[in-house]
Order: sequence, then C-alpha cells, then structure tokens
Amino acid sequence: MRAVVYKGNGQIALEERPRPQIQDPRDAIVEVTLTTICSSDIHIQHGAVPRAVPGVILGHEFVGRVAEVGSAVRKVKPGDRVAVNVETFCGECFFCKRGFVNNCTDVHGGWALGCRMDGGQAEYARIPFADNGLTRIPDTVSDEQALFNGDLLSTGYWAAKIGEVQPADTVAVIGAGPTGLCTMLCARLYTPARIIAVDTDPFRLDLARAKGLADITLVPGKDELLETVRSLTEGRGADVVFEVAGGTDTFQTAWQIARPNATVVIVAMYEEPQVLPLPDMYGKNLTFKTGGVDGSYCQEIMDLTACGRLDASFLITHRCGLEQILEAYRVFENKQDHVIKFAIKP
Amino acid sequence: MRAVVYKGNGQIALEERPRPQIQDPRDAIVEVTLTTICSSDIHIQHGAVPRAVPGVILGHEFVGRVAEVGSAVRKVKPGDRVAVNVETFCGECFFCKRGFVNNCTDVHGGWALGCRMDGGQAEYARIPFADNGLTRIPDTVSDEQALFNGDLLSTGYWAAKIGEVQPADTVAVIGAGPTGLCTMLCARLYTPARIIAVDTDPFRLDLARAKGLADITLVPGKDELLETVRSLTEGRGADVVFEVAGGTDTFQTAWQIARPNATVVIVAMYEEPQVLPLPDMYGKNLTFKTGGVDGSYCQEIMDLTACGRLDASFLITHRCGLEQILEAYRVFENKQDHVIKFAIKP
Amino acid sequence: MRAVVYKGNGQIALEERPRPQIQDPRDAIVEVTLTTICSSDIHIQHGAVPRAVPGVILGHEFVGRVAEVGSAVRKVKPGDRVAVNVETFCGECFFCKRGFVNNCTDVHGGWALGCRMDGGQAEYARIPFADNGLTRIPDTVSDEQALFNGDLLSTGYWAAKIGEVQPADTVAVIGAGPTGLCTMLCARLYTPARIIAVDTDPFRLDLARAKGLADITLVPGKDELLETVRSLTEGRGADVVFEVAGGTDTFQTAWQIARPNATVVIVAMYEEPQVLPLPDMYGKNLTFKTGGVDGSYCQEIMDLTACGRLDASFLITHRCGLEQILEAYRVFENKQDHVIKFAIKP
Amino acid sequence: MRAVVYKGNGQIALEERPRPQIQDPRDAIVEVTLTTICSSDIHIQHGAVPRAVPGVILGHEFVGRVAEVGSAVRKVKPGDRVAVNVETFCGECFFCKRGFVNNCTDVHGGWALGCRMDGGQAEYARIPFADNGLTRIPDTVSDEQALFNGDLLSTGYWAAKIGEVQPADTVAVIGAGPTGLCTMLCARLYTPARIIAVDTDPFRLDLARAKGLADITLVPGKDELLETVRSLTEGRGADVVFEVAGGTDTFQTAWQIARPNATVVIVAMYEEPQVLPLPDMYGKNLTFKTGGVDGSYCQEIMDLTACGRLDASFLITHRCGLEQILEAYRVFENKQDHVIKFAIKP
Repeated sequence: MRAVVYKGNGQIALEERPRPQIQDPRDAIVEVTLTTICSSDIHIQHGAVPRAVPGVILGHEFVGRVAEVGSAVRKVKPGDRVAVNVETFCGECFFCKRGFVNNCTDVHGGWALGCRMDGGQAEYARIPFADNGLTRIPDTVSDEQALFNGDLLSTGYWAAKIGEVQPADTVAVIGAGPTGLCTMLCARLYTPARIIAVDTDPFRLDLARAKGLADITLVPGKDELLETVRSLTEGRGADVVFEVAGGTDTFQTAWQIARPNATVVIVAMYEEPQVLPLPDMYGKNLTFKTGGVDGSYCQEIMDLTACGRLDASFLITHRCGLEQILEAYRVFENKQDHVIKFAIKP
Repeated sequence: MRAVVYKGNGQIALEERPRPQIQDPRDAIVEVTLTTICSSDIHIQHGAVPRAVPGVILGHEFVGRVAEVGSAVRKVKPGDRVAVNVETFCGECFFCKRGFVNNCTDVHGGWALGCRMDGGQAEYARIPFADNGLTRIPDTVSDEQALFNGDLLSTGYWAAKIGEVQPADTVAVIGAGPTGLCTMLCARLYTPARIIAVDTDPFRLDLARAKGLADITLVPGKDELLETVRSLTEGRGADVVFEVAGGTDTFQTAWQIARPNATVVIVAMYEEPQVLPLPDMYGKNLTFKTGGVDGSYCQEIMDLTACGRLDASFLITHRCGLEQILEAYRVFENKQDHVIKFAIKP
Repeated sequence: MRAVVYKGNGQIALEERPRPQIQDPRDAIVEVTLTTICSSDIHIQHGAVPRAVPGVILGHEFVGRVAEVGSAVRKVKPGDRVAVNVETFCGECFFCKRGFVNNCTDVHGGWALGCRMDGGQAEYARIPFADNGLTRIPDTVSDEQALFNGDLLSTGYWAAKIGEVQPADTVAVIGAGPTGLCTMLCARLYTPARIIAVDTDPFRLDLARAKGLADITLVPGKDELLETVRSLTEGRGADVVFEVAGGTDTFQTAWQIARPNATVVIVAMYEEPQVLPLPDMYGKNLTFKTGGVDGSYCQEIMDLTACGRLDASFLITHRCGLEQILEAYRVFENKQDHVIKFAIKP
Repeated sequence: MRAVVYKGNGQIALEERPRPQIQDPRDAIVEVTLTTICSSDIHIQHGAVPRAVPGVILGHEFVGRVAEVGSAVRKVKPGDRVAVNVETFCGECFFCKRGFVNNCTDVHGGWALGCRMDGGQAEYARIPFADNGLTRIPDTVSDEQALFNGDLLSTGYWAAKIGEVQPADTVAVIGAGPTGLCTMLCARLYTPARIIAVDTDPFRLDLARAKGLADITLVPGKDELLETVRSLTEGRGADVVFEVAGGTDTFQTAWQIARPNATVVIVAMYEEPQVLPLPDMYGKNLTFKTGGVDGSYCQEIMDLTACGRLDASFLITHRCGLEQILEAYRVFENKQDHVIKFAIKP
C-alpha cells in the first residue's frame, strides 16, 4: 500500500509499504477512507518531536472502515465505519480509569499513532486497543464530518471541558487556526456570552466570525487587546482564556487578558520554555492548565455531530488524493491559499 | 395606586393602595413597568400556599424603573431600569454565602414578594435588599425580554444548573408549560444532544418544537414514553430528567425514564406527597433534587439576554393593562386561548 | 469443596460442591482465606432479593489467594493475596467508564457474586473480570483488615463520596450497624466537625463513640433528634445525612434533620416504598441520593488501610470456621451477643 | 497607643499612634489581645511589597476583642472575642460572590490590613466590613489557638481546597516553614495516604514528623526527591504538590515530582519570575494554581478548631510583649533559635 513515511532529518516520502496485520487480539485493521495533515505532522517533519521514530508512517487524524478485528475486540466489527482516536490506550491503568488517556501507562499508550507507531496517512492502519480507540460513525454522518473527531475536535472539546466554560462567560481564544477554531466551536457548547478571537490573520478571523464562532475579533499590534477585553467585562478580564497560538508574546497576553481567578488553558504545543512572571500575577489567583488532549470524549463528540450540533467539516478548505499529499504538506505548512485543513483520500 | 390584593378564601381584588415607602436603608422603590401572573399566584389564590398573607399585594415577577433608593443602596439608582428577583435575601447569612438565597435566614429572606410582603402586580413595589434583588436591564433589552429574568428564567437556569446538563446528554422535560419551556431554554445552554418534551397539550409541544427547544415531543397515554426514551439512548434512559408537571403519574414517569445514575430534578411545586418506590429503583443510583428556585444567577441570565443568547419573550402570548388583570387571571388559570404568559402594563 | 448454598424458600445449607473452573480468559479462581456474612445474605435467605438464584453459593465479601488465572488476566497472578469486589464489571461500558460499576451492562455486571453467580462462602470462588474485581493485599495488611474492602468499606467510602462531606460539616448517620459504622469511618476521612450517630442499640452507639467515629449519639424516642441536631448547627440542621437504618420512621427523620440544601444519602436497602412529602420539604432544596454501592474505590481503600488510616477490622466481634457458619447466620441475623461482624475461615 | 510602623526604606519602628476611630458604619474597632509577625511583614520591611504604604501600622494576623462597632454592623458586638481575616472585603462584588475575596473590587478590598491600611501590631485596629472580616472565637478556643485563623490557617485551608486533595492521595509539600506546616495540617483534613515534606531545615522536618503532619521528610541535595516520590507511587509521582518555599529550584522540583494530571499549587509568594519549561512538561497535563489566599473559610477553620480537629498553636515557639517586637522581627527574619512563630501581647 502507499503511505507517507517520516524519513528523519526533515524528510518525508510517499512509499510502498506492506499492509498492516493484526498483532494482538485487541487490534483492528482499518481501511483508511479519509485522512488529513495536522500541524503536529509538520512538527515531526521538522524534527521537533523527539519521540517520533524515523521510518514510521505518519498520520493520526483519519477515518475509515474496519477491515479486520482481533479475537478480543467486542465493540466494532468488519465493515463498521469508524473515526480513529489520536490516542491509543488500555482503558485499565491508573490514568485511563481517570480519563487521562494521554498518560496511559501501556507501552503503546498515549499519542503513538503516526509518531511512534505506524499511522493513517496510508491505505490501511493497525489500531491497538480497538475497543477504546475507534468510534463508530452513524450513517447520517459523512466522512468529512467525522474526520476531526479523534484529534482536532477532541482537542477543542477537552480544552473547553478543562477550561470549565460556563454560560454567560467571556471567553478569549488566542489563535484562530484549525485548533483555535475547534476550541471556539466547543466552547460554544456551553453558551458563553461572547467569544473573543485573537489572531494576526484577518482571513481566519473573518472565518471565525462568519461561522458564528467569534463575536469579537482582535489583531494584536493593531487592536488594544487588554483594554478591549476589559471594556467588555466591566474591567475584569476574560473568564476563560485559551492559548492556541504557541507564541512567547501570546503566552503573556493570555494571562494578562484573564480576569482574576480565571482559568488559562495552554492548548498550543510550545517549542520553547516560557516565563511565568509570578510577582506580576500575585494575587490574581490564576489557574493554568497545560497539556495535550485526552481523547476521552470521542463518543460525545460523535453524538453531537450526529444530532447536528457540532460540525467541523467547514474547516476543510482543500481536498486531494494521497498521491498529492507531499504538495499538500507544503501548502499546509506555509498556510498558502488560505488553507485551514486538507481532506485526503487514500 | 392600583394593586391586586389577595383577600383570602380564594378571592383576589383590584384595589387602591398607598404607594410604598422606603422602610430600611437597603430598600428601593420600583415603579412597575411590566408585570405578569405566575402559576404560584393561582396557588395562592386557591389557598394552597399557607404562608401567603391575606391582604398582601400579589406579584413576584416584574420589571420596572427605580423610583427611590435607601441610603445604603449602592448598586442601583433612581431611573435605572431593573428586573426584580423573586427572592429577597441578605447576601450575608450561611445560606446566601453559598448561593442558597431561597433559604436566606433574614426575616424577609426567600420568596416573600407577593406572598408575605407586598409584590408587583401594582404600580409601585418596595424591594428590600435592593442591591441583591435588582438586576439592571441594559438599553438593548426590552421590558418584555427582561420580564421573566427574576422568576421563570431563574427557575429554568437553576434547574439546568443543578441538573448538571452536559453536552451530548439526552434530557427529558416533563411539562411544557411556562416553567417547562424555560427549563428547556436553559438546558439548551449546555447543548444536550436532544431534549424530549412530554406534555398532554399538543399546542405547547408544538411550540416547544417550533422554538427549537424540543427535538422529540411525547404525549403520555398516546406515546410509549419509556420505550421511546430508551430507543434514543441505546436502552439506557435519559441522562437528566426535569419534572415540571407536578403530577403523581409524572413523578413516577420521571424516575422511570431516567437512566441509572441520572439526576432527576423536581422543579414542579407539588401539592401532595409522592411515593418513592425505593425497592424498585434499588441499584439505579438516582439523584433527586427537590426544591424551589435559588435566584442566584439573575446577572448571568441578563447577560445572556443582552448578548442575544437567551430570550423568553416568546412566552408572552397575551398582553393587557392592570385594569384587565382579573380577567387575565381567569384566562391564565384555565389555560384558555393557548395562553402561555401575560404581559401586563400597570 | 464445602459451600453455603441458597436453597430458596428461606433455606440455606452447607453442601459439597465442585471446585470452580476458569470459564473465560478474564476469570480468576480465588482460594478463599476469610469470608463473612452480610445483611444482604439474610435478605436473600428471606427471599427478599428476587434476583437471587436458588442453588447459588452465597457470599460476596471475602478475601483470598489467587489460585489460577485466565489467559487474558494481567494484573494478578497465582499466589497473590486479594480482596474481592462485591461487583463484577467489564470496565468498558458506558456506566463502567463513568465509575458506575454497579450498573455495568455486562451479563455478569453489577452485584452478581453470591446472588446470581456462585460466591465466596466456600473454599474457592470464580471471579469474572479478575483485573477489575480483585485488589491486591499488601503484606502489611492482614486478611481481617482487608476483609471488608470490597463491600462494607466500599459502601461507606462510596456513601461519603456521594454525600460530598466537607471539612467542618455536621454529619448525621442514622443506623450504627456494620454499614453505618463504616459510613462514619469513611465520612471521617473528610474531617467533619462532628458526626451524630442515631440508633436504638446503645451497645452500637457506645462502640461508635469508643472508636472515635461518633461525637454525639442519639436514641430515637429517648432523645430529641431534631432539636439536638439544630442546637449543634445554629438551628440549621445537618449538612449531610446518611440513612443506613432502612426504616419508615428513619426515612422521615433523615430529611427532617437535614439542613436546607443538604444531601441525604439513602444507603440502606429498603424493602418498602417510602413517602416523600414534597409539600413539607418545598423550598428546602434537598438532594437525595439513592442507590447501591459502586465499588470503584477498592484500591484507594486498600491504600488507606496499608498506610494505617482506615481499618475496619474492629467490626469483627466473632470468629469461626466454615463448618459453624449456619450457627453464625443465626447469631448474625438475630444480632445476638452484640455481634457486629463474623470472620469465617473456610 | 503603641504600634509598629513601616517607615519605608527597610525601616520599622515602634511608635505612639492615636487609637483608631470608626470611619464607616460597617467598621469595628478591635482591641488586639494577641498578634504575630508574618513573613509578609518581612517582605514589606525589605521593600518587596510595592503596594505597602510607608507610615502604615503593620500586622495582618491577630485576634482581639471588639471594642466598638459601626451602626451597620450586625454580626459582632462589643465584648466579642474575634479573629481577624487578613482580607477586608465587601461581600457583594463579582469576586466576593464567588468566594474570591482576595480580589474584592472595593477600594479597601483584598489584603489591605497592615499594608495599605493600619493593621494589628498595635493595641487597637480598625476593621472595615466587620461583618465579613471578623470571626467570633468560642469560649473553648484560646487566643493562641485562634491566632492563625485569619491568615496562616486560611492560607493552608485555601491551598488544600484548591489543591483538591483526596483521600489516599500522595501529597508533597515543599517548604516546612509556618505556611508549609499549615498546608500539611489542612491537607491532612482530607486524609491523604501520605504527606512528603521537603525542606533544607532538619528541625522543621522533625517538627513536621513529630506533629504527625509529614510521613516522609526529604532534604534536597541529600535525598533523591524524584526517585523517592516515584518509588512511593508506583512510578507516577505525587497527586498534589504544594510549592511553599518560593525558590527557583523548588519551582522546578514542584512540577517534576508531580504525576501527570496532578495539581501544583504555588502557595509561596515569589519575588522573581520563574521559567515554565512547557516542552518538557508537554503531555503531562499539569494544572498550576497560583495566587494568594482567599480568606473565605475562617468560620469553617474556627469550627474545626473548636471541635479539636485543627490546632496550629504548636507553631508558637516564642512569646513576648509588644515592646520586644523589634527584637522579635530580627529573630523571626533570621530564623534564629528554631523560631516558627511568635505570639506577641500588646
């Protein structure tokens, strides 16, 4: 089969690979029907994800059809359409029992697909712990609607959950890329009074506004962030702030626009340490949540999609086949042509 | 001034009364600009609310304009448009500090307006603890949009809050009258996958569906309640059930359609004890929340109304002046003419 | 092997039975080293537990040594000393994922041991889903200290957890039998200001006081319950009430001695429906939690036992061998000789 | 009266000052019966608290007797023995309503006593918002037992609360000074399996162990912190970490010894910004809580003291009169003579 392989040293290639086989009774083999490129793939390509193993097939955000299941798999069967969870997890360890599947202590636990274990930018993929890692797609949900279930939407859903957004809150989301947009989409589930989106790209801010995700959009440098946020909140600041941009300046902006006792969720994957100016924020009693998605709510996300209340398919701005994926990597990496997300058919 | 007075023995009358005066530095006098009739008023009229004092001016759901404030009032000033909280509360006692304002231990604490203390079916009303009990109405919010802030919307908001509705939940609301509709409206703030409305009145169910509040509507006796709820939830039952009908049969329906470990919120004001068949529900691990609204979220409700995310003004099906209020009582009590709520101008 | 068998019609017998065998790869066979009699066994004997199957080996509270494991068992191995969870559960279904293991949808899920499936008043027992249902006993913990881990302590721990006991609370526990005492023991983990124990048996109340579990003990009929509770709480009532007695009068006492907005946990297994006088409690905004233990915290309980912070072995007032168990049933059922719990060696 | 005055530029002096007067109807005048020195006083003396106003009377941790009350004070009366809350707060603003009294928006809100407003290292002190800021001391509680109610114990209690300590947790407390010891005392209220205390001072660690606060004590540099914590937690790390030392190295230690998904509470008042190495902690999903005490639980703390469950008077290692306070400052600042806390009689 054709697959995108990480070659190390900034290189990726489209290569021929053998179709994966069941290795454990809890495995399933999924025929990939739609896949995509995530910004983490770019991080891997750049060598910025040390645990990524050269030679691995990339891709951790995809949907497909179950081709084969191991003898211990109970919840899915060949022929089922499924969304794949970015994380593989045992479901039984200390962390899994608490929903912290990102920290599953199994050797395959956490984010392994397309990083330490062959992933889904290919025609087929092996999914360990298939009962935990696959979510059935109802007939009424298209592949495009389900594509972001296991990673992008899981991230937004997890962020909104740990951010503890409440009705009537003022929410700020810094960064209006794919993850930021999904964070807004999921924060909306709790009906904040307003979402303030911050980004330097007017196209993305326009999209956020056009899709009803952001009520107010601000461009750093151009707009007065702190003053605007305060003026909307009787001087207090935002109730919840999501930092999805990953910059040094945006890290500082995040806590500055937060009101005292706010929660600041660091959704972005930072490549550099950041400075936490504790004396300046003393008495502000902020909560910072750092992390990486716990993909514990794939079923809820699928339910919300099935009932028409959560649809991220509008993020798909570009479509192509697996044979054009290297070009797609280039477009996506350079944010050319107003790309948000690709949908790629193997 | 003209005022509706509870005469005892099932009687009410429209009478001339002196305009209320400031009695405590924390009082405010509000000129009533719009008022309404609540089903609790009918309960009082019927003598079913023992603590209601004959001679009291009725009315606990109204908006107005501040006419005068006591010397200790800090948050509102004459001229401010305000919504009135059904509950008066000190803000300082054990219960108030925890948000349980319905159980304020002050002598005027809890639901007193229009029951134990002159209320707002009149031209003016005195509001104790005005800083706690009045919510300013922004210019962009009309009197009709603000009218239900302090009672009906507070009830729905409180119910959704203690019901702990989560995104993707299946919610059942038994009773689609004004309170049931407000409960649906507020449950929607948390984006359940679906709301199932149960009522015997097809008009009200149609309204619930037309307004996007209910996804599925069921008529007891006609539809198979338990089977339908189960079929929508893979056999489990509803995640959260709100009992807003107040019947003996609906009380049993409420826990039966709930899934194991669900929360059943008893929103209705019951006039009779109910039977709790503990042996039948053993192992179902249900949580029952009983009560009476804690009006602790009036500001949040007003914020959501101001930003266009919570508008209950569609409940107003009938309008009249204070001089027609006795006729309005009759129409409302008998649910004539598809009435949901009256808006009454003093 | 020797085993206590439920014969139906109020009869139990000590019989010879074949030693159980592995039936599923996830099973383990446990050699029982210490077992006990629970009041639920008496309920079964009386025919009051309809789902109990005649012919079943009784016993759902026991410890032992792993004799054999199925091929899919990962967490325990032959030779391990283990406490057995009263509930068997798959760990993967909707309810298990939320910790509601009592409602596991597996055919063997929930309380099955010694009821619908052969239990542990025998020399050996088969435990399905052994990875979920067995908790390893550290060397420093004796069999007697571990004996109540899976049922009695799990019940007390679950009750204290869902009762949401907070430091400085006033807690009332109605019923000072084995379950009531364990509830006090576990409520203590959250350091309430005081625990008020209510029972008709002065011996049990003395024990509760002597063990430092109860600060105040009250005898209904003799002491003024409501007045005493109020006098200790500035007139408010108890913050959390546990009803562990199962009586009609104690059910009413439970909500009456609760303060407004309290949680009332119905721990007792009721044999009759109860009356919920909603009009009398209107405005009191009580939360009722009904149920049956979710045995989700066996590891935490074992940890607390291992570190010396939770030890229920003082409940063992009587010891005997399996051959004397029928006599032990009689003593236990009739609460003779100040028995609290038996420890029985197979 | 005699009072300790902050002179600016590192200077403090014992001076004669006029006795304070009621300035607002909500004020009370308290005759100070016992006061103490806090490490924040040393920070002020050093000029490290910019908002501290030269000329102010120092002292924010003291108990006394109400001498006089303003006309709007309802909860205390002359003669009452009271503990003083470090924070003054209105009780009515957005933050106060949520328990975030440290961020009260009143001009006198938050930590003002002995900093921006005359405090309690004096014979008398004026307390604004006396109904909120004073906690009555029961007859059974001594001044020494109540002395730390409003600051040190409030800090420990708040820290344990926001740290969400659970029964059976492994808790690490870095820093075993007065605040660290109070944090352990309050974490104990939730019965963690073990508390690991970390400090460089063997005397303080011995005290923590002797008082039953710490189960394991570790000296950085001498003991292997990370390995020890992991060996106690099956490799995971601590469930909750409290950083009470305020050092750059201890800040890094704090998150390193935390298990994935732990909460790290930054209790210490940092004088320098710290580095947050986000790439190193990616996927660890840590929650950081930063702040400054919210003194919202003074009543609960007093209740626990009254019932014998929370007593910090053992912290008092030194006693003197107000005339010796300048010498006491020197001893306390230099941690001479194994001082933990002074009790000073005006």
